[in-house]
Amino acid sequence: MSKQPIDFYFDFSSPYGYFAAHKIEDIASRHGRSVTWRPILLGAVFKVSGQQPLSTIPLKGDYMSRDLGRTARLLGLPFQLPTKFPIASTAPSRAFYAVSDEDPALAKRLALALYDTYFTQDRDISAPDVTLDVAATLGIDRSKLERQINDQAVKDRLRREVESAISRGVFGSPYIVIDGEPFWGSDRLDQVEKWLARPW
Amino acid sequence: MSKQPIDFYFDFSSPYGYFAAHKIEDIASRHGRSVTWRPILLGAVFKVSGQQPLSTIPLKGDYMSRDLGRTARLLGLPFQLPTKFPIASTAPSRAFYAVSDEDPALAKRLALALYDTYFTQDRDISAPDVTLDVAATLGIDRSKLERQINDQAVKDRLRREVESAISRGVFGSPYIVIDGEPFWGSDRLDQVEKWLARPW
Repeated sequence: MSKQPIDFYFDFSSPYGYFAAHKIEDIASRHGRSVTWRPILLGAVFKVSGQQPLSTIPLKGDYMSRDLGRTARLLGLPFQLPTKFPIASTAPSRAFYAVSDEDPALAKRLALALYDTYFTQDRDISAPDVTLDVAATLGIDRSKLERQINDQAVKDRLRREVESAISRGVFGSPYIVIDGEPFWGSDRLDQVEKWLARPW
Repeated sequence: MSKQPIDFYFDFSSPYGYFAAHKIEDIASRHGRSVTWRPILLGAVFKVSGQQPLSTIPLKGDYMSRDLGRTARLLGLPFQLPTKFPIASTAPSRAFYAVSDEDPALAKRLALALYDTYFTQDRDISAPDVTLDVAATLGIDRSKLERQINDQAVKDRLRREVESAISRGVFGSPYIVIDGEPFWGSDRLDQVEKWLARPW
């Protein structure tokens, strides 16, 4: 039986990605799997697939707000739709990859802290200063990280990750791939868990 | 505690609507509820919300095919994506309302038979003859139903249902409303069941 890591694609601006981020490690570890976290920029993906953010679609936007609150309560996660939504998630994504290359576990804690900052404290993590402040609370060197998120190598790293995701067919967030099998949406976490136990 | 009927909106061209149609009555009856079935025309809804059918969106269409097969197997329902998809669901929707006004229970059986014909036998139920053939297998008078689906009163009835759905915020299929609380998608059936047990 394959025990390859699960790929977890997400956008820091995606509330359903926030839900999944708080659940995916527990689900994977129950089945002896590790998870590779891969933040992407949905804006770049939407250019390829011709989509718009959910919140901007008439009728669907209103429903989304209601569904998000209801789903958060069911999952036991605090949540409020941020005042500024959606946002460009370039700064937090670059920060993630910069930290991840040195300490993947710390990068996951950073990702959760960034998500919590955006979706429970209504602070705009698209501002590099906010992302850096959050990183500093985890003991990450603020000045070093500031240099890194402006470093061309880190910029290129994120661009490559987004291109790779698009070429793999990723079109939304969260998007989870298990041994080549894709699952889109936090509402597929039940199928993710069942697939890990036994593909059908 | 309210025991109002649940409203079940669906489009005969919607595979996720087909899944929900096979599950919603059992879910509702476990909680002492009846279900009012309301076929709609997603094409008219999409004009308002500016959406496109999922299958026509790059990347998303490929994923949808895979997700449908996987979800059908999980639910224990036979399924194949029809050769002609999506279709205009005017004829089956009119047939439903014509029958429903005289015998709501028979209309639900007709809806399930139409869904099964389209999603398991790959027969195009947008053709009035196919819809009428399916109705005939249930003992429904074919000639009478043929007159009815061309009757202005039945046409107007369907138009009113679609307009009423849009004004209520319905934008997809399946779309289930419980005491004013909306749930979109067959992947919300677990929340529907929990909400019926106890809203949170």
